[in-house]
Amino acid sequence: MSDPFAKTRACFHLPEGVIYLDGNSLGPLPKAAAERVRGCVEREWGEMLITAWNRAGWMDLPRRLGDRIGRLIGAEAGSVVLGDTLSIKVYQALASALEMRPERRVILSDSGNFPSDLYMADGLIRTLARGHELRVVAPEAVEAAIGPETAVVMLTEVDYRTGRRHDMARLTARAHRAGALAIWDLAHSAGAIEVDLAGARADFAVGCTYKYLNSGPGGPAFIYVAPRLADRVRPALSGWLGHEAPFAFDPDYRPGAGIERMRVGTPPILQMAALEAALDIWDMVEMPAVRARSVELTQAFIAGVEAACPDLALASPRDPAERGSQVSFRHPEGYAIMQALIADGVIGDFRAPDILRFGFTPLYTSLADVEGAVAALRRVMAERLWDRPEFRRRARVT
Amino acid sequence: MSDPFAKTRACFHLPEGVIYLDGNSLGPLPKAAAERVRGCVEREWGEMLITAWNRAGWMDLPRRLGDRIGRLIGAEAGSVVLGDTLSIKVYQALASALEMRPERRVILSDSGNFPSDLYMADGLIRTLARGHELRVVAPEAVEAAIGPETAVVMLTEVDYRTGRRHDMARLTARAHRAGALAIWDLAHSAGAIEVDLAGARADFAVGCTYKYLNSGPGGPAFIYVAPRLADRVRPALSGWLGHEAPFAFDPDYRPGAGIERMRVGTPPILQMAALEAALDIWDMVEMPAVRARSVELTQAFIAGVEAACPDLALASPRDPAERGSQVSFRHPEGYAIMQALIADGVIGDFRAPDILRFGFTPLYTSLADVEGAVAALRRVMAERLWDRPEFRRRARVT
Repeated sequence: MSDPFAKTRACFHLPEGVIYLDGNSLGPLPKAAAERVRGCVEREWGEMLITAWNRAGWMDLPRRLGDRIGRLIGAEAGSVVLGDTLSIKVYQALASALEMRPERRVILSDSGNFPSDLYMADGLIRTLARGHELRVVAPEAVEAAIGPETAVVMLTEVDYRTGRRHDMARLTARAHRAGALAIWDLAHSAGAIEVDLAGARADFAVGCTYKYLNSGPGGPAFIYVAPRLADRVRPALSGWLGHEAPFAFDPDYRPGAGIERMRVGTPPILQMAALEAALDIWDMVEMPAVRARSVELTQAFIAGVEAACPDLALASPRDPAERGSQVSFRHPEGYAIMQALIADGVIGDFRAPDILRFGFTPLYTSLADVEGAVAALRRVMAERLWDRPEFRRRARVT
Repeated sequence: MSDPFAKTRACFHLPEGVIYLDGNSLGPLPKAAAERVRGCVEREWGEMLITAWNRAGWMDLPRRLGDRIGRLIGAEAGSVVLGDTLSIKVYQALASALEMRPERRVILSDSGNFPSDLYMADGLIRTLARGHELRVVAPEAVEAAIGPETAVVMLTEVDYRTGRRHDMARLTARAHRAGALAIWDLAHSAGAIEVDLAGARADFAVGCTYKYLNSGPGGPAFIYVAPRLADRVRPALSGWLGHEAPFAFDPDYRPGAGIERMRVGTPPILQMAALEAALDIWDMVEMPAVRARSVELTQAFIAGVEAACPDLALASPRDPAERGSQVSFRHPEGYAIMQALIADGVIGDFRAPDILRFGFTPLYTSLADVEGAVAALRRVMAERLWDRPEFRRRARVT
């Protein structure tokens, strides 16, 4: 049987001898991105200089690429824009949402959220100094915790540690029934699972592009604002490129139309060039097929590891409908095990205190990769390869 | 006499037939940046994948490059960090400063400040909702306007339109005597003039790298916090990379040591690679020599234009001590004049309503460029070349 993803796999540079299961942290290099970045540097920056902002279309990249990402997350046209980092986008969304619920004081989140989202909420709360509270409950307790005092439900759809997935439509509807707004962090969703922001009636969403979307290290984040809200949002981070007329150099801020107002400063063009090339690969596939393949890969990995490595405990939901596109196992020596595995050419990552994390990315991960990874993990565990000093020594982990 | 800057000029790719006087908006491509970015994409991202965060030193780039920029602006070692955009850095500095003066309500700025700085202040004031006021006075009225109610004096040292330069040491001292803090935007200072942040006892400074520092389109911004304050600052934008231990994934935010806490999210590595190569050129020169050459170039340009183009009115201070490294002229047809000039191969830019702006960047601008630019401008004015429909039609201007 031919591999339907052989064509997309051929679009990536995958180093010899490596099985890469960390595309949920940093996607690999799309071959065309190398060429596209070179062209951006040499032909656009080098030859056009300042005129490239118009002539090479740089100024519109945040919107143009936003629409292309929008297609992957079920967003309406013109509702997504690129820029900044995910943490900044969280702050923007949260500040806007709180201002739309001035009489409420609770930001509801869960203990599975990525810490930076919680930190940004904390920073905003202290800045507001109006008695807001960040209420962090267990993931399964979120629904019951939504109440009349909830201003915003702020959740990462797919847990960065375990891959556990929230029911976006259900929790958004619950938030709306309680009069609250919903912000979804799609860091581990965009390009990983089918997302339907419009269908779920999400209010805000944010995400990053360097994981499943393969934009490269430090690629820009994105933000979605539901079209029904976009023209009512007051941006807390009111930068000049979100102004109605940035080049009028008006001393007074007037927000741009709709999602444009969520732009802040000068966009990172070299990173956007890489993203643009990466998105071309996404144009070759449809998310339902990607998702089906992801389930096939993750199911095979779980079955293989459970058969081969009885000491590893599955940390991800067993039902694929309840998880994203990663699989995590727990082991008290998780750090050393991952180091030994990486030394053997299988790259996943470790998340404190005890999580071995493996990302499955159908655009370039094959069933043969799954088999190879299982075999390597079996060796590491059976031969206790992890119990060597060089693997137990902690370096800084990313 | 040999040109002392011939060596640095040879480090840049300068398109054939172009005299580039817009390096104050977007610096040209350092030849080594093209190679460095390619290496970052192909050898680091492509081959090392996620492990490059440690193995290629990506994680430390914001600090390492911060120190290299610090040398150019008189900052203490370990007091500058890269990241985000200038607008975001303005917000960070301003939010921190206001929190250090909780009993005061006035942010003092001037009408020569870059609009985005004023917009960000406006956005912060609305977010704080505690009755802060952004008081914008004429540049020459700033000193007298500093008073007991002033929390922060927030100024761009060199005016983006006219090149008029504030006296940083004097105004900072005046702010401190009044019990206020001083934030300096160095967008048109870093790499343009000698800056002595430590000597002036500036509290905060921010700046961008894609102008005089030549990091490329959308290169990251930087922020400086005086070492005496850095450990007392509470970051409003409390992202995970500003955490004391980002990879502990602690649910609670604890700010990192000193300037580290001003980091927010994942840094844009491709842009930083370009910046790194650009800063190598800065290592070949000392700022006093750059400044002396800048004065020589701008004086020659002013003399040449005033002799050749009587209809253009100098908008920059005549005394070089009172201006940065740009020269501006006013003309009601400024837009069309600049278009005609660009068509003739001399690239400057236009700033509404009537400013023709020319940046002088000794690393690659020669006296021959000055002569060529004067000759072109003379032609455009004497032959009324600007009075053609194709030059009068307004495109979006950057």
